[in-house]
Amino acid sequence: MVSQAVLIGLDWGSSSLRAMQIDARGQVLSERRSARGASTLQGGPASFMAALDELIADWAALPLPLPMLACGMVGSQHGWREVPYADCPADARALAAGALAVQWRGHALRLLPGLRCESAAGVPDVMRGEETQLLGALALAPELGARSCVVMPGTHSKWARVVGGRLLGFATHLTGELYALLRQHSVLARLMPSEDCTDPIAFAAGVRAARERGEEGLSHQLFAVRTLGLSGRLAGSALPDYLSGLLIGHELRAGLAARDADAPLALVGEPALCRRYATALALFDSAPPRLLPNTAAMGLWHLAQLLGGRPHGN
Amino acid sequence: MVSQAVLIGLDWGSSSLRAMQIDARGQVLSERRSARGASTLQGGPASFMAALDELIADWAALPLPLPMLACGMVGSQHGWREVPYADCPADARALAAGALAVQWRGHALRLLPGLRCESAAGVPDVMRGEETQLLGALALAPELGARSCVVMPGTHSKWARVVGGRLLGFATHLTGELYALLRQHSVLARLMPSEDCTDPIAFAAGVRAARERGEEGLSHQLFAVRTLGLSGRLAGSALPDYLSGLLIGHELRAGLAARDADAPLALVGEPALCRRYATALALFDSAPPRLLPNTAAMGLWHLAQLLGGRPHGN
Repeated sequence: MVSQAVLIGLDWGSSSLRAMQIDARGQVLSERRSARGASTLQGGPASFMAALDELIADWAALPLPLPMLACGMVGSQHGWREVPYADCPADARALAAGALAVQWRGHALRLLPGLRCESAAGVPDVMRGEETQLLGALALAPELGARSCVVMPGTHSKWARVVGGRLLGFATHLTGELYALLRQHSVLARLMPSEDCTDPIAFAAGVRAARERGEEGLSHQLFAVRTLGLSGRLAGSALPDYLSGLLIGHELRAGLAARDADAPLALVGEPALCRRYATALALFDSAPPRLLPNTAAMGLWHLAQLLGGRPHGN
Repeated sequence: MVSQAVLIGLDWGSSSLRAMQIDARGQVLSERRSARGASTLQGGPASFMAALDELIADWAALPLPLPMLACGMVGSQHGWREVPYADCPADARALAAGALAVQWRGHALRLLPGLRCESAAGVPDVMRGEETQLLGALALAPELGARSCVVMPGTHSKWARVVGGRLLGFATHLTGELYALLRQHSVLARLMPSEDCTDPIAFAAGVRAARERGEEGLSHQLFAVRTLGLSGRLAGSALPDYLSGLLIGHELRAGLAARDADAPLALVGEPALCRRYATALALFDSAPPRLLPNTAAMGLWHLAQLLGGRPHGN
């Protein structure tokens, strides 16, 4: 028997939109992607509706009117409709309870809230979308629910503390954004080739520099990307990965020091980036982490189950 | 009696060119500025000659053919002519000995070398121009020569260790460049007004966050610029100075930990920026530093004295 879609899930971040037909086991049956991320659209319903029309107008005509659920920046202040953050500590039920609905072609589309926490020093932190990935990871790997540190690498990496199935708090690192800025716009970029290139040895050297001499400061160690290139110690093609290693190494240095030492680590997200983090973790003598791909579909499905009994159109 | 020029000094950095007529006591009699920094020019003599023609062609016709001396990126690989780096430890004599001459309108213009050092871990560092400022500072404040830590804030801040009149080594921090990148191109910029604004309280809060919680990592603490703005705890107009405080605070955290504890600090450079660093140093409970303005003219004059006996046209 062919599996049937029971949910249309949207993972709608800043820079991209992913629409998925999801079956009764949380598996993705069919998927479409668009570059119309929330940051590329004008706030308010019209441009978001148009982006959805463009990508999946035909899905609106599927035989059964499927429930629709979205996570990510689509619910931000400049999104389709602002969905207030839920506060940590939070579990799946608290997130589901915060969803708000909008209308698209006669269907109710629920937008999930993001999450907010506050550090011991009173500094707030926020996520939108990663909380859904995190719940998906806990659904796929229930052993992480008891106690874990779930790392979601990306433009804005998230380090989340999970205890007893609840997200207690988290910390964001700007690692991916710093890499992109320095790779494209800084003095460090001048010696780098414009095309992508990978150099595992240079990456490891960058990670080690952060681990062994990170107290020299990131802003100082970054300058070595230039001087190692200028002096010919590293080829231009090695510099992007040395930079990547430095930045990820500094993230791990801070993240590992802050986590509960007995909380097993998991890496959730784009597989190539997670492997890069796993390589760096090994250079920090950290136990091998559990690796999970992007788990947003599973998170959306899990949250849709909790929402199932509630009327559409919040 | 009116003082007469004995030297034409050029402080020719990446982003600007400053030409000065300097008298027999090292004082600037007359000064002109241009935006034709080395990074805005094609490498090689032609474009550099043209930039100088544009700015000071009339100075070439002064009654006496004055000696000319230049420091900065004009001597880099992509400058007028590449002048190889001198190596640390180095003193004024070693720098003067490395100067190379080019011709401009029949005059010999000497280009000073930059300086190179290597950290204990074998990582190279470089400067071009700041070594001349440093020598100027030592000429103006001879007590710094015995033992000091001379900080030259800027796009690429330099922390130099001076002992017995020699520069033993130094470390570069990318602080100013990181500020500009994040202020202009990052997600942090979105909540900031486009015009400049100062907020001493927000600056101090950023410095304190770096001092008290810097182990959380710069890439994490940077995200607070966004969340403090999003949550309304800081106004958009306070965010640039919070960012500035964080970045300078992280530089001080690393720089102060690395310096010889008994080496008095001096700040050399643009007065407003030096005052900003002095404020941050006070928040680190550091003794008040000696403050000196841009001392490039004095450094050029001092080096010209050493070069005086050597034939023009190296």
